[in-house]
Amino acid sequence: MRIRFALLGAGRIGQVHATSISSDPDAELVAVADVFEDAAKALVARYGGDVRSIDAIAAANDIDAVVICTPTNTHADLVEQFARAGKAIFCEKPIDLSIERVKDCLKTVAETGAKLMVGFNRRFDPHFMALKGAVDKGEIGKVEMVNITSRDPGPPPADYIKYSGGIFRDMTIHDFDMARFLLGEEIETVFASASVLVDPEIGRLGDYDSANVILTTASGKQCAISNSRRATYGYDQRIEVHGSLGMVSAENQRPVAIEVATAQGFMRPPLHQFFMTRYAAAYAAEIAAFIAMLGNDSAPTPSGHDGLMALVLAEAALDSIATGRAVRPDVI
Amino acid sequence: MRIRFALLGAGRIGQVHATSISSDPDAELVAVADVFEDAAKALVARYGGDVRSIDAIAAANDIDAVVICTPTNTHADLVEQFARAGKAIFCEKPIDLSIERVKDCLKTVAETGAKLMVGFNRRFDPHFMALKGAVDKGEIGKVEMVNITSRDPGPPPADYIKYSGGIFRDMTIHDFDMARFLLGEEIETVFASASVLVDPEIGRLGDYDSANVILTTASGKQCAISNSRRATYGYDQRIEVHGSLGMVSAENQRPVAIEVATAQGFMRPPLHQFFMTRYAAAYAAEIAAFIAMLGNDSAPTPSGHDGLMALVLAEAALDSIATGRAVRPDVI
Amino acid sequence: MRIRFALLGAGRIGQVHATSISSDPDAELVAVADVFEDAAKALVARYGGDVRSIDAIAAANDIDAVVICTPTNTHADLVEQFARAGKAIFCEKPIDLSIERVKDCLKTVAETGAKLMVGFNRRFDPHFMALKGAVDKGEIGKVEMVNITSRDPGPPPADYIKYSGGIFRDMTIHDFDMARFLLGEEIETVFASASVLVDPEIGRLGDYDSANVILTTASGKQCAISNSRRATYGYDQRIEVHGSLGMVSAENQRPVAIEVATAQGFMRPPLHQFFMTRYAAAYAAEIAAFIAMLGNDSAPTPSGHDGLMALVLAEAALDSIATGRAVRPDVI
Amino acid sequence: MRIRFALLGAGRIGQVHATSISSDPDAELVAVADVFEDAAKALVARYGGDVRSIDAIAAANDIDAVVICTPTNTHADLVEQFARAGKAIFCEKPIDLSIERVKDCLKTVAETGAKLMVGFNRRFDPHFMALKGAVDKGEIGKVEMVNITSRDPGPPPADYIKYSGGIFRDMTIHDFDMARFLLGEEIETVFASASVLVDPEIGRLGDYDSANVILTTASGKQCAISNSRRATYGYDQRIEVHGSLGMVSAENQRPVAIEVATAQGFMRPPLHQFFMTRYAAAYAAEIAAFIAMLGNDSAPTPSGHDGLMALVLAEAALDSIATGRAVRPDVI
Repeated sequence: MRIRFALLGAGRIGQVHATSISSDPDAELVAVADVFEDAAKALVARYGGDVRSIDAIAAANDIDAVVICTPTNTHADLVEQFARAGKAIFCEKPIDLSIERVKDCLKTVAETGAKLMVGFNRRFDPHFMALKGAVDKGEIGKVEMVNITSRDPGPPPADYIKYSGGIFRDMTIHDFDMARFLLGEEIETVFASASVLVDPEIGRLGDYDSANVILTTASGKQCAISNSRRATYGYDQRIEVHGSLGMVSAENQRPVAIEVATAQGFMRPPLHQFFMTRYAAAYAAEIAAFIAMLGNDSAPTPSGHDGLMALVLAEAALDSIATGRAVRPDVI
Repeated sequence: MRIRFALLGAGRIGQVHATSISSDPDAELVAVADVFEDAAKALVARYGGDVRSIDAIAAANDIDAVVICTPTNTHADLVEQFARAGKAIFCEKPIDLSIERVKDCLKTVAETGAKLMVGFNRRFDPHFMALKGAVDKGEIGKVEMVNITSRDPGPPPADYIKYSGGIFRDMTIHDFDMARFLLGEEIETVFASASVLVDPEIGRLGDYDSANVILTTASGKQCAISNSRRATYGYDQRIEVHGSLGMVSAENQRPVAIEVATAQGFMRPPLHQFFMTRYAAAYAAEIAAFIAMLGNDSAPTPSGHDGLMALVLAEAALDSIATGRAVRPDVI
Repeated sequence: MRIRFALLGAGRIGQVHATSISSDPDAELVAVADVFEDAAKALVARYGGDVRSIDAIAAANDIDAVVICTPTNTHADLVEQFARAGKAIFCEKPIDLSIERVKDCLKTVAETGAKLMVGFNRRFDPHFMALKGAVDKGEIGKVEMVNITSRDPGPPPADYIKYSGGIFRDMTIHDFDMARFLLGEEIETVFASASVLVDPEIGRLGDYDSANVILTTASGKQCAISNSRRATYGYDQRIEVHGSLGMVSAENQRPVAIEVATAQGFMRPPLHQFFMTRYAAAYAAEIAAFIAMLGNDSAPTPSGHDGLMALVLAEAALDSIATGRAVRPDVI
Repeated sequence: MRIRFALLGAGRIGQVHATSISSDPDAELVAVADVFEDAAKALVARYGGDVRSIDAIAAANDIDAVVICTPTNTHADLVEQFARAGKAIFCEKPIDLSIERVKDCLKTVAETGAKLMVGFNRRFDPHFMALKGAVDKGEIGKVEMVNITSRDPGPPPADYIKYSGGIFRDMTIHDFDMARFLLGEEIETVFASASVLVDPEIGRLGDYDSANVILTTASGKQCAISNSRRATYGYDQRIEVHGSLGMVSAENQRPVAIEVATAQGFMRPPLHQFFMTRYAAAYAAEIAAFIAMLGNDSAPTPSGHDGLMALVLAEAALDSIATGRAVRPDVI
């Protein structure tokens, strides 16, 4: 049986998901909704399906699952609507910027028994998956420390910053999720340090562009995260996990693997300049995992709870900056 | 205007090309032919189009171009048939194992004015393209030496070897094409050395599994090729171009870029185990290049002549082994 | 004029310094002192000079400079004695584990006008020097973040731990010095997180074996340090400096640069297993720098103040762990 | 018992060997001879010993071994003189440029029973030793192919070229020795291809600056060597050995292991610019091996025969170029 999908939001990331759905033999794209009908039409012309309204999709009998990639402030409402409508839900992160709103939303999901998967795409990057695989196989023994370097090629525009929730809820949130994923244990303390070094405008908006975070768990495991909104050499995304028997690391990805050696030295081209090319395989794999999960009726991962916990850690990071202390995140 | 395609041969590589055609907005898959009708049907079910006979495709008005990926011994006949039918032709290498047959075939292509592109996919590998781009931009000055390492993960079955034309016509032929492509000058002498080190059965069939080749050009440029039918660590595909100002090299590709460090050392996983995953991007790019070439009516590259010349070099290599001499390939 | 040296302490590191002194054309080894006279004799037999007492060396007219590599608890007294004796002094870190004692000692040094250099050998590692050179030349623009990974191959014996002053004064102290050296600005806040993951005995002694530290400066620069007392794969010593125009990094050093590729993957041997082989070139270079500094009468670097500041940061790190807060180190 | 050495030739390489001898606890430098007495005096002033004449050294009772690093055209005479004088001999390669002269010389060595080691320093490079160790331990199974890349930073002056014996006797000779060392089997055929691409002056002197060579053995093993007299990026010295179970490779060595990442890409500094810094450890290790060999009275390796065979392969390479054929080197 093929999973019949509706896509909510026909923007950039919507198109990525449409490609994944339409090229999966176990899925088909049945409907697309977007407030800009032309965007929905263009997408349907290329990948198939009908343009429909959100409500029509919720009411439809020929739709099993929705992929929510509308603006963040609509996510929680849509998750609730489609949970009640009995659809399986893939929702882009974050469910909401407010922890309370996310909690409410997840309550509805729990009550309806709806399946909800949150779009932490990095868990599905083939390199990070291989790294996690090595950890799970015990190749590095007992996990002790996770070190994450995560830097964007360049800062987003001020308009984006304004509604982003700030660097911890927007950018570090991915690293918080990877930290929980790789430590295999809940976070007990969060210490964060942040400054404005890249763009003073970011500071004027009350946000930061450079940050370091230390997380600890009850058993003494630690995670260090290093973030910057700007890396001139491209999208810098590295993870190391250090354990009792060794270390596993995932290197940066390069669009072309050449090296030019001259009298000046050995030069390799910059990294990917864009998260969508860097994580192209991850986006495809997360939708494939969602489809597989629906197919074998297993529990969705990353779950709504995972989405919530990453947000809780972001909140704790902000609290840490305000107080200069290591902060215990809310236990949920 | 979208290019309307027919696919001849619904096997492994046919499916790869079908994916490329069907996901290109400037192309569509109209028909598929295969002697095993079920294979054609399965392909059509997934990628669209009708199952038709070869002759029906040749006679059709709704088809602009064909992709030939049938067995090698049918290539030349099909190229001739479709050249006469006025279709643009993408033909998997080689056109034929006989130089005379290829020459005849190309004569027909020339007479009909048909567009013919030969499937030397490696020219379209993004890493090799970047390497060629660096050469063309003059980053390494005047080209002096090309060094190609090309090793398969494992030897093909005896049945394949029998009809393959031998290691030079089957495997080194790709390296011969890359040598011509990168040296930018015709080959003047070919010296080859070959032995049977991997599998005695290959020797019993009169073929070799390990070879080194030196090519030279009139201006004194040299190319060294190193081949083996078996590399335990995966598909080993490296190229270096050395010039007056430096060297550009393309490293091996890895399916996962992790490293596990333990008391035993630092371990990275093996390379790709299969040419179709190693060159996945190259297969897509060569079809995209064919489509673009048809769209802007430019000369097809690699051409039928390129296909012929690679075969001529393979022949010269065999002649070199027979005589122990550096051999001048036929000038054509 | 050759600098005439006395070596105080003929142990492991004393031998390293003796090699450097005796192979430097601008220096000569005149005398060696050690409480174990046999050790001093053995050293003299190999590298030349006489065995003398500490006091005889202090009183000697034929000695310009001393290298102090006796046990830590003797350093401060010896520095004072030889400062008063008018000798130039190279002293292994730390001058003392007590900040007050170091301050007193430096007061004497200042009063006597003695030249004092402290043995933070890492500043002289050729790779870290090249990294610092790139920073100073502006290749990465304005420094924003320093990331230091520093892990020992294995934990020291319990007896060593007892008198070491703990991980921050013994191990991280090198990283604190590199942080100051590379940030080019004094540290304003120190946050540290530490746990016992490697060896419970270390915990019983009141020390830690795994730590992460975040340092910040007044202008918002940050430094993250990651430490472990055990890395199965060898001595892990990496530094990255991230700036407005890019990043410079120094990779780990390997005693042998081979790679064995098999069906299991690509394996490189472990890193150095010992700090004295890893930093062999650094030890030679720091003595050469000391000799050069005496030759051209320039200010010693790293200075006694540098030694003190690294200790102050270690103290702040301990304070941070005790309070769970980011701590302002004493300004001195 | 310490080996008492005389050094014949106080030039650049003589100084390197003097350092090795004088810092080895099992050796001592007793005498130095050089036609330029000032050079001998300077060396003695730094490393100890007396300045003596060649004949005085031959007649001396306090000398066990000589290191010959005088000009090439004196090597054979000196080897004979010191063989007859009963000294152990370390001779820089080549013993002579004439095969006949070398044969005569080795006859004398055999008759006198003198111990003779030839200075093929690359066998003692720690990275190549580790590579050979991996081969010997069977880590790559049965050896099938050796690939050697060997490029100098820049061409020597015309005056040097004139008396060098040409690229094969001067430069490739090292690679010929490594090929024999790694293949573990004598060479049966030699094919060489050479051209003048770097400097026309080299061509006017009847020599080449760019070459590729293929060697084969009776069992079908192959070796490919790629040479250039100029590599803008530094001293390019790489070896790969491919076998039935995998491949072992030795990477290029870098004086500093940093990388600078900017918007232009990731830049590492050039390689060593000079063979004496690249092979510093190898020079020390070969003298240590010679001393150890004398200490335990084992057979010298590389032997005079090894020196001869490398020369025979160089001759065969020239013959191959003259005839365009794969040439069987003289069996000796």
